Formats: sequence, C-alpha cells, structure tokens
Amino acid sequence: MASILENSGFNPDKELKIVGTNPVKQDGPDKVTGRAKFGADLILPGMLFGKILRSPHPHAVLKSIDTSKAEALPGVKAVVTRDDFPELPPGTPGGDLSRNVMAREKVFYDGHPVAAVAATSEPVAKRALKLIEVEHEVLPHVIDPVEAMQPGAPILHDHLRTKGVEGAEDTPTNIVERLDLAMGDTDAGFAEADVIVEREYDSKPMHQGYIEPQGCVADCNEDDQIEVWCCTQGTHVFRDRLADILRLDSSRIKVMQSEMGGGFGGKTGFYGEPLAIVLSKKARRPVKIVLTRNEVFRCTGPVSGTRSRIKMGCTKDGKIVAAEAELIFQTGAFTGSMFFNAPHAMFTRYALENIKTTAWEVVSNRPKVNAFRAPCVPQIVFGVEAIVTELANKIGMDELDFRLKNAATEGYTTLYGATFGPIGFVETLEASKETDHYRSPVKPGEGRGVAAGFWFNRGGDTTGSLTITPDGSVNIMLGTSDVAGSRVSISMMAAEELGVPLEKVRANFADTSAIGNNRVTAGSRTTFSSGMVIVDSARKAIDTMVERAAEIWGVSPEEVTFEDGHCRPASANVGDFEPLSIKDIASRTSVSHGAIAGHSEMNVTGEGPGFGVHIVDLKVDRGTGRVDVTRYTVIEDAGKAIHPLQVEGQYQGGAVQGVGWALNEEYIYRADGTLDNPSFLDYRMPVASDVPMIDTVIVEVPNPNHPYGLRGVGEVPVVPTLAAIGNAIGDAIGIRPQSLPMSPPKLLELMDGDETRAAAE
Amino acid sequence: MASILENSGFNPDKELKIVGTNPVKQDGPDKVTGRAKFGADLILPGMLFGKILRSPHPHAVLKSIDTSKAEALPGVKAVVTRDDFPELPPGTPGGDLSRNVMAREKVFYDGHPVAAVAATSEPVAKRALKLIEVEHEVLPHVIDPVEAMQPGAPILHDHLRTKGVEGAEDTPTNIVERLDLAMGDTDAGFAEADVIVEREYDSKPMHQGYIEPQGCVADCNEDDQIEVWCCTQGTHVFRDRLADILRLDSSRIKVMQSEMGGGFGGKTGFYGEPLAIVLSKKARRPVKIVLTRNEVFRCTGPVSGTRSRIKMGCTKDGKIVAAEAELIFQTGAFTGSMFFNAPHAMFTRYALENIKTTAWEVVSNRPKVNAFRAPCVPQIVFGVEAIVTELANKIGMDELDFRLKNAATEGYTTLYGATFGPIGFVETLEASKETDHYRSPVKPGEGRGVAAGFWFNRGGDTTGSLTITPDGSVNIMLGTSDVAGSRVSISMMAAEELGVPLEKVRANFADTSAIGNNRVTAGSRTTFSSGMVIVDSARKAIDTMVERAAEIWGVSPEEVTFEDGHCRPASANVGDFEPLSIKDIASRTSVSHGAIAGHSEMNVTGEGPGFGVHIVDLKVDRGTGRVDVTRYTVIEDAGKAIHPLQVEGQYQGGAVQGVGWALNEEYIYRADGTLDNPSFLDYRMPVASDVPMIDTVIVEVPNPNHPYGLRGVGEVPVVPTLAAIGNAIGDAIGIRPQSLPMSPPKLLELMDGDETRAAAE
Repeated sequence: MASILENSGFNPDKELKIVGTNPVKQDGPDKVTGRAKFGADLILPGMLFGKILRSPHPHAVLKSIDTSKAEALPGVKAVVTRDDFPELPPGTPGGDLSRNVMAREKVFYDGHPVAAVAATSEPVAKRALKLIEVEHEVLPHVIDPVEAMQPGAPILHDHLRTKGVEGAEDTPTNIVERLDLAMGDTDAGFAEADVIVEREYDSKPMHQGYIEPQGCVADCNEDDQIEVWCCTQGTHVFRDRLADILRLDSSRIKVMQSEMGGGFGGKTGFYGEPLAIVLSKKARRPVKIVLTRNEVFRCTGPVSGTRSRIKMGCTKDGKIVAAEAELIFQTGAFTGSMFFNAPHAMFTRYALENIKTTAWEVVSNRPKVNAFRAPCVPQIVFGVEAIVTELANKIGMDELDFRLKNAATEGYTTLYGATFGPIGFVETLEASKETDHYRSPVKPGEGRGVAAGFWFNRGGDTTGSLTITPDGSVNIMLGTSDVAGSRVSISMMAAEELGVPLEKVRANFADTSAIGNNRVTAGSRTTFSSGMVIVDSARKAIDTMVERAAEIWGVSPEEVTFEDGHCRPASANVGDFEPLSIKDIASRTSVSHGAIAGHSEMNVTGEGPGFGVHIVDLKVDRGTGRVDVTRYTVIEDAGKAIHPLQVEGQYQGGAVQGVGWALNEEYIYRADGTLDNPSFLDYRMPVASDVPMIDTVIVEVPNPNHPYGLRGVGEVPVVPTLAAIGNAIGDAIGIRPQSLPMSPPKLLELMDGDETRAAAE
Repeated sequence: MASILENSGFNPDKELKIVGTNPVKQDGPDKVTGRAKFGADLILPGMLFGKILRSPHPHAVLKSIDTSKAEALPGVKAVVTRDDFPELPPGTPGGDLSRNVMAREKVFYDGHPVAAVAATSEPVAKRALKLIEVEHEVLPHVIDPVEAMQPGAPILHDHLRTKGVEGAEDTPTNIVERLDLAMGDTDAGFAEADVIVEREYDSKPMHQGYIEPQGCVADCNEDDQIEVWCCTQGTHVFRDRLADILRLDSSRIKVMQSEMGGGFGGKTGFYGEPLAIVLSKKARRPVKIVLTRNEVFRCTGPVSGTRSRIKMGCTKDGKIVAAEAELIFQTGAFTGSMFFNAPHAMFTRYALENIKTTAWEVVSNRPKVNAFRAPCVPQIVFGVEAIVTELANKIGMDELDFRLKNAATEGYTTLYGATFGPIGFVETLEASKETDHYRSPVKPGEGRGVAAGFWFNRGGDTTGSLTITPDGSVNIMLGTSDVAGSRVSISMMAAEELGVPLEKVRANFADTSAIGNNRVTAGSRTTFSSGMVIVDSARKAIDTMVERAAEIWGVSPEEVTFEDGHCRPASANVGDFEPLSIKDIASRTSVSHGAIAGHSEMNVTGEGPGFGVHIVDLKVDRGTGRVDVTRYTVIEDAGKAIHPLQVEGQYQGGAVQGVGWALNEEYIYRADGTLDNPSFLDYRMPVASDVPMIDTVIVEVPNPNHPYGLRGVGEVPVVPTLAAIGNAIGDAIGIRPQSLPMSPPKLLELMDGDETRAAAE
C-alpha cells in the first residue's frame, strides 16, 4: 500500500526529459476558446431549471412555508422545502450541513435557502418563487463576532456550548470553541526580550471570487440512482456528504466533475447540489441549478473575518524570544472555519521556542465561511509579519537578515508537533536577498514591504489508475479535481516515468464510481498526492511490462530492465534481444494476458512544507488613498517545479488575490443584517490594470518524500501578501495599517493623523 | 494475473443468498419509463447535427465530389468526404473499415456513405446533402454470392485474391477465402452408413432488428482530444478501430457508452461515429449523427446469407458415422463475416469422428455483414438438424434418443481442436424428453419440430474494478457493455461475495479512459467474463479488509476470516473480537490507509460450452402459407442461472428472433441492386401476436471454471430455432423446407407440389 512512501525513488541525479519543461496545458485550448464544459454546461433531455427562495432576514424563526400556489403554477414540476430533507440532529456535521443548504427551524443569514422550485424554464421557476408564502418570526441578529461573544447577544443555536472552556456546558453561546496551544515559556521569553511589540489587528470576510458561479445538474433516475454533475474541488467528499444529509448509501450517488472556473477552496462545499437532487427525485426529471453572482456573494462561503492581538519580543541581536496571540475567527452561521490553521501556522517558519496562542471560533448571522487558499492564515500573518518587520526595524537589522536569523530549519519541532525534514526557508530568504528587486533602491515616493509565509502543504487519501492502450498510448485516471493545472504536471510525471512523449498521455478525471475515495483538492495537495499515486501506478504498469518482456524472451523478470520507454536486457549476459517498446509489449500481450494497468490507493504522506517571501513596492495617493502596486516579487520554494510556468502562475495568482484582499475586498453589511455589496460592481476585486507583472523566483529544495521532489505551491503565495503590502504602505506613509482591507477611506483616515487605530512608527 | 482462473473458487456446496434470485434489474425502471439515455440522447452545448450522403448505386467509381455549394449554405459548419480520412491500404482491416464508413475509390452498395454534413439543424443538413454533386461511373453489380463466385462476375476489389486456394494469387476474385477443415475419414464413415441424407439449403440476409437506430455524438476539442458518446457493444474496440482508421493514438479518443436499445451483435461495428468525429474536428463543435431506419437497413450490417450442401450418414442402430458440408457465406462488400464459426459449430454437439467441411466467404454489392447471436451458425444448423431429424425418422428412432446416442460428452475433442470439459448436452436432452411439451401428443392439424444447438461461449480480455465507499457501500466498474442485463447478474455476484444486500452495490460502466481494454460484449461472454473479474476484484478487496481488520485487532491476517460481510476471528483462539462489518472497516480505515479497492485485468478463459434443445408446435394455413407457432419450449444448460428470469429472457428472446428469421425476415433487392424493403413496413419482424409464450427449462450443469458455475446463455437460444421450425413445418405439411425464410409464398409453392426444391419425406 505504501511502498512508494517508504522509498519514493527520489533520485536527485536523474536526468529529466519532461519534468521541468513547459508544455501547453491540455485543458488550455478549450478554456481560451470557450469550449470547456463548466458546471452550468450540461444539458440533459427533459431537464428542468431550479431556483432557490432565500431568506430576506438575517435571523428569524421559520413559522410556516406554504408552497401550494407555486405548485399549482403551470410548468412547475416540483417544490421542495425542509420537509423534503431528513431531519438530522442540529449541531452534528450532517445536521449543520443540512440546515445550511436548506433552513429548517430558523434562517440564520440573509440569503439562507428556504425553498426551491424546479420548472420547465427559469422564468417560470422565478415566478413560482414569488408564490411561495413564508411566515417568519424575525429575531434580533448579530453580525460582528466580538459582539456575538458578549453576554446578551442574540443566540443563533440554542444547543451550542463552547468547546474547550470548562463550565460552559450550561450556557447557550455563539462561541463554538476556544483553542489554547503553547510551547515553552512565553513569560520567561518576554523577560529576555529587549524589544516587545504588541498590536491588534482586524480583517473582514472576503470572497474567493471565482469567476464561475456554482452550477450543477442532478438526475435522480427511476431506480433512485443519483447522478450529479457539478463544479467541485472534491467529488468524493461531495458524494459522501450528500449521502450523509440525504441518508443514502454513498454508492447511490455518482458525482461527476465539470471543469473548474476557479475554486480556491470555495468549491469544497456544496449549495445547490442537494436541492437539485431532491427536486429531481420529486420531479422525476433532471434539474439544473446555477447560482447568480448575488447568490454566490450572499450565500456561499466567504473567508473568515478576524480580530487578533499579537505580541512578539526579540533580543537586540535579533533573536525572537517569545510570541503570543489571541485570535477571534468568525465562522458565519455554522462552525467549520478551520481556524486552528492560524495558531498552527502563524509563527511557523521561525524557530521559536516560546509560543502561546488562544483562538476562538464564533458564529454570527452571516453565511458559513469556506476555505480559501491557506485557510485562516494570511489575515493573521498580516499582523505577525508586520511585527516582525517592526522588530527588525527597531533593532536596526535588515529585515531579511532578521528573518534568516530566526528561520526554522530541518529538525525544528513546531507548535503543532511536527518536526521539519529538509525545508527551504533559509534558501528562500537567501534567494530573496539576491533578487534585483531587493537590491534595488526604493523609488522616491514609494514604499517597500517584505513578508514571509508558510504552509504545511497536504497529502491525504488519494487514488489513481494508469492504463496502457494496445497501441502503447496511456490513459491516466485521476480522482482529484484539477483546479489549477494539476493534470498537465501529473501527465508529465507519468510520461517521464514511462519514457513516452507527453502527447501519448491523456489525463482523465474519474467520477466517484470509477475510483476509490480522494480527499478534496485543497491545501496544495493534488499535484503532490495524485502525482504520487500516478507515479506509483506507472511503476506497477512497468513491473507488469517487465514481466511480460521476460516471458517473451524466456528470461526472468530480474533480467529485464525498463529504461527510456523500453524493456531491455538488464545486462549483456541476458541475451541479444531487441528492446521492446511499450507499444510492442502492449500490442503483443493486451489480449493474451489482459490489459496493462497500475492502480494505487494510499493515504499519501511526506508532503514537504512550503515557504515564501514577497517583496512589494507601491505608492499611496495622498489625495485619494488609492494604492498603486508598482513592483512585486514572489520568491518561493517549490521543491521541484514540474511545470515551471504553472508554478509561476500559482505564485502570481496568489499574490494577485492577496492584493485584492489587502486593498479592497470586504463584505459590507447594512444595519438590518443584509449584505450591501453582493455584486462585482460594489465588491471591488483587482483587475488586470490594478497589478503589475508579478516577478517570480522558484527556489528548489527537493522534498525527498516525493519521486520528483515536489512541494505544494498553491497556498503559500497568498500567505505573505497582506503583510507585505501592509509593510509597504507603512513604509510609504509612515503609519502601518492594522485593519484589512487597507482601502482608500481607511488609508485617508490613517494619513489624516487618526492615530488611535494606527501604530506610531 | 490469472489466479482466479487457476482456482475459480467454485464451490457447488456454497449456500447462496443472492445468486439464483430474481431482483428487479437496476436499469429496468429507467427503460420502461423512457428515462434511460440511449445513443441519440446526449445533448452538448453548441452541438451540430450530422447527415450522411449515400450512394444510390450498388457499384460505381466515385469520379468526383463537389461540396462547395453545400459548404456555402448558411448553417452548414463542415462537409467531409474521403479526403478527410487518412488513406489506408485497401484490403487491410483498417483500409476496409475506412472504406466502409466513407467510400474512397468506389461505392460498393446501395447506401454506401459518400459525404457527410454538419449543420446547425437537421433540415439544413438534409438540404446541404442535396447540394453535394457526385459524379459516378456506374459499374455492373452482383448481389448473389454464387453469381459473384462465377468467372466473369463484376469484381468488387481489384486487389482481392482468394486465401486458402493455391494458385489464386494472379486472379482478381470476389472469393475472400476457402476454409477446409476435416477430422477422421468421411469416406470410411459413409461406407459404414446404413442411411445417408444429402441436401442443399439456402438462407437470405436478415437484420438484427434492434429497436434503437445507431446514434452518437462526437466532440473533438481544441486540444484534439476526442470524446464519442454512442451505443456500442464494445467501447474499447470502437476506440481502437477509430484510432486505427483516423491514425491517432488510442488515448486521444474516449468512447462512452449509452444504454443499448438492442444490439445482438449489430453494434459491434461503427457507422456514423468516425464521420461525426471528422465533422467535429472540422467544425470545432460537437456533432450528433442518428441513423434513420432506412439507413440502418441499407447500410448497417445484416446477417450473412448462405448456400450450403450437407451430407450425413448413420447406422441403423443410430450412430452418426460421417458428416460433410460445403458452405458459401456472403459477407457483403467487405470481409468479416466470421463464417469460420459455421464449420466449427455446425456438427459440434454430436461426438462425430469423421467430418469434412469446406467453407467459402464471398463479397458482393451489399452492405458488409455484421455479427448476430451465434454468428453464421443458426442458418447452417437449419440444415444439419433437418438431416438429423430425417435420419432419426428414417431408422425409426425417437429423435431425442437419436441425439442422445450421438451426444458429445466430457472428453470429446472437437473439429476446432478443443476438448470438452464438463458439459450439459446429455442433461439437456434428457430434460427435453421429460418436458410436458415433448410428452404431450401433437394436436391435430399441427406439426412438431425438434432441434438442438451448440455455442462455444466466449471469454477474452476483460477488466473490472470494485471500490468500497467509506460507508461500506460498493461501486463496481465494468468495461463491458450491458446489452441484456449483465449488470444485475454481475452486481449479484459482487453482493454475494461481499455479503451485502444487492441495493448496496451500484454497477457503473467505464468509458475507455477509466479501465483497461475489454473485448466486445458478444459471444455470450460478458456475464461470465466481467463476472469473473468483478469476483476477482471483490476477493482482492476482501483481502485488503482482512489485512486491515488484522491490524485493528493486532493479529495476523491468517487469523482473520471474512464471512457474511464481516471480518471475524478465524478461530476462538485468536481472541474475543466483535466482528467488523465492511462499513466498520471502510469508515475506520479509508482515510488512514487509503481507499479499499480491487482491480482485475485478465484474459478470461474457461468459458463453458452451451447446449440447447427447442421443441416447437405449429400449424400451417394451407390457403395462405401463414405459419402459427402454437407452443414453444426452450431447454438449455445455463451452468448456473445467476438471475433465472434474465436467463429465461435470453432463451425467449433468442427463440423469438429465430421465429422471425425462420418465417419472414429477408433482404430483398431490386434488379438495379437497391434494397427493396428498408423499413419495418416491408421487412416483416415478428410482433407480440406472432409468438406464443415461450416456455423454458433451465438445466444447470455447473462450469467448474467459474466461481458460480455459469455458462453464457445469449447465443445458444437462437441456434436451433430455424431448424426446429423447419422440422415442425415438415411435420405439418409433409415437406421439409430447405430455403429460409419459410415465408408464406414459399410454403404455398411447396404445398402446391413443387418438389424440385423440397425433400420428399
């Protein structure tokens, strides 16, 4: 099961022919010509169109729902409400998930689904929504997480008790959990400090901002076998959670993935899919549901907003001696923010001995948050790296040297208990110092910021198959979604292993029925993990080909070696045999011996942690508060860049998303608890003209646990961005902001001298 | 690779809970409610509609094709001709196949494709066809195979030379091959005979008559990756042949199967698919092509028409001492009739020592034939079993006793070299004698016929996978098409192995990318072969679960046994552990250890030969020649009936198709070489009112090479039908017909005393 893990076969001296080159992505041409099939693109015979009735209130008891008039409208084939879902206990994962996709006792946020309609056209479905009569008992609501933590705040869930706090069993609360983590002795550490900085920070929820709104088609057949076509980062997780909330065997549901028009973590959870299934089951027709942008903003998972207080101290020669933090994470109406990532990762990259963190997760009347690249980490690193820079400045040390002095290296044991193997933080910092960007002077009127970031990277349960066709071409079957180009990188590894041109390898995506379970594509795990199982599968197929070549030659398998796409005699003693190509073996034995294939199911471990440094120059318009980013460099360890352009794309994409988060993106609520800016007109995302070319430096410190040495590269690039920009603004205007986003009104306020919220330099 | 073959694990004493029961077929509800998705049912965004221009001549040189006016028609997005296909050498499998789907130098039959158009609607595509200008040089044609064999006959293929005939290298011919097979000494055998019968027979091409016309959608994407959705009996064979004629790597093409609205062998070859691919590649849009019934009749593969001369002799105590045959098979315009099946199978069921056969395959100006249940055998057995009955009658022996006396048993070595293992012909004949039908007297005015048949049954390269979901339900992945209910039988075997209810098992069909190669679903191989690989996969998954249970309990895998869906301590000494269900193990280990799955790729052997006997009563209207079948019983060895109702369905369906073939179905050509009856109005297939209830008797002589003992049951049921009906007509009217179909005009002619073509009783 795990042979490849015990010996990944990583060989730093292997001559690579395909890995490390930049072929055109197989999915690229379809995507740029508009032919790729996304979630909204499936059409089935007899298909209906589903629409969702959503709550106009942020908090209300659902007293009654009368669908009779809607059901009577010609063209309406099904109307569903809470009554069409099994009732699961509140406060359980399934119970919460079920209540998030369809409100049961109460609605918890503006836009919470209350009913859904399937009709022969969208206009009819919309008209039917207006005929559904819902009786609400409106309740007081709470949006801000700190307010939600106060005694007397409106309580969302009567059953909720704070986890991790003794004596909390009797008190209904909005606080889901308190998580305390510590190592060493921070009091003793701070006692050694020559300089201590302590500050408070806050951030607002922002949205992943994928271009493609969620779209799906569900088809429940007459045997109650269900097929769901949708845009998902994890078909198996979708399937198993759908089965859970619908109380079905998982094998009853088949989830098929569309191409992905952006996910970034936001498509790890589902919204319309269970409604489409229940509508299809009732209507006995396929049902398509495509969310509008308004629905995407109001009702799909944004990123946690936060409040934090962070304290760090160092000696005057530059050693960080202690760090403490208190963190509050808003999770929306239901738990699931992954807030624990923040204490795990916020200081991790520095070899600190004394750390103490307390983190809180809090519900309030907002949509349940969802993952976004390096979930819950960048908005906290925003503060950490601001303080790191401030400490370096205060002791008069170059800030990269300061980070180098404190950098974690192989053997460091983290707050979350892992001990690092070979990692590339030092190399990344050294490469940063060598960049032209860092060595160039800051232009007059501009500011420069630097920040560093870390992400665990992930592995997890993963499956894959590789089959050789009788003509020697290759199909690989992946169970993980391709959110950003993993198929080309994985295909390249397969081609490299098999010694065939990339064009011979076709990457295919399995539906859930074709392959064993896969964890979601998230956490920078897919190219690493699916690459691992496909390399494993390729090696198994090679073993089979070696056996067959041996049989053809009448020798033992040990006397045959596979190299450069051919089985060859392992030595001159074996005999004078012409090498057999993959095609030779496949065409001669596929019928007589059965197909040549390799399969792999494993819980992939050995992921290599990732580290990055961002350097940003920018200028701030003193009249408007507008920030222009003028130069941006991302330096990051990829372990090994399988497809360097794809790696650069990740670095650039992470930085660009961070620019938006840093400068503009935020959820703005009205006093009545409804979202004020659920459109791209009012929710300001960066466009091409907002960002300069992002320069990249790929550092390669191989991960010895992977056959090609790679580390995940999807999360790290967003982690330092907010802090780097904050530091650059601080450098430019003399006041370092502590509140995200650093939007024009806020910067104007800072520059106007309101120092009650800003730190004096 | 073949462990299950070396030890199939067949255990005649195993208590079966699911195998042998009759659950509702999973695909049944969708099929009876119209929701199943057939070849014509896929819709893709931007899809175009393809239409095919077909030759009005049976034989002509294609001098020129001008598509310019068609291309100029608004709405037309692509027009293709021979110029859009790679030119492959004529006379090779790819060259012939390519020329059959799109005429190159010449057209060879009425309806041969000459060009194809893709347009935004079917009406536009049809209009465009009329604008294509084709210049033909019409050539003399030949329809009848015996005429085609004569010197001076119009030659279809200048390159063709008769295989198997010495000195034929220099003479262009329509005779593809002469195949001589012999064992023993027929001259010596006939010398011992007390009675010899020798007669000539003929049959006409008939059509498989599937309800669903061929339909497909091809989508060639911008990266030239091709997807084809179609109704096929073999996705991998379609893929590899498409790749061959299009000169592409197989992995470039992904074939996905629709549900099948009848195949019976006729969907082992493709027609519209390559045209749709080439149109899609040119138009850069998906293209759908659905054949009309007229096109199905004129241009898809019917069954070989034949001429034969058969001679058999027996001693007066009932031993058949010699058999000889000369057989002529019409293959249509291109080779590929599988005519060799006839000499292999025609006498095989009798333990003959002396056999001599000569068989010819001949091209003529008709559509290339295709497979039909037991290809090329029933129309020859029509004569063999007529003579067997006649011999029995002549020596005054009960005809079932006569067959019993000559029945092959275990150890008999056939003309084609195989030596029978355990077979059930004797048991089938004995069961036939015991039927109420055989023991009841023939009603006044009616006739009774009996005949026996044999089919090899097939195995071949087959793949399958089985995965356990984390909740313990099961997905099986099949690479073989389900033409008649194999999914339920295979699911039942998986459920039986795993000890779970059938409802927990979902049967899924892989596209060609998801699984290794599979031979076509044909020859009664699928329930046997795919059942074998799924049982093998289930046993591999069980091995994994046993290992994990052992790890959970801290014991060795040898100390764990799997029984009734649970891992249990193998003995009381192992420890006092609660049994672990599949769900227990899957939910506890799927993430930590990776998914639980089993995969199997093998060339499945060990298929068990099948034997059947048909008994039919009928009456012949002396005024019109119309035949009414009044009672029909099929007795056949299934080895083991996994799903008895499905087996009965095969028996009944085979008999009903044989009734049509026997009594009415035939291709009728006009003098100009065009088909006169290409519609269900003029091509007379049996309808429900034409057949009585077909009674069945399932004999079960287990095949020890299969874990559940099964034999294929799809082919045998059609083999004896024509002969049984012929014998019954002979019994009814006193003259046994020798020409198929035994249609009213022919029977009237016989009854009018034209004995030049009929045998005196």
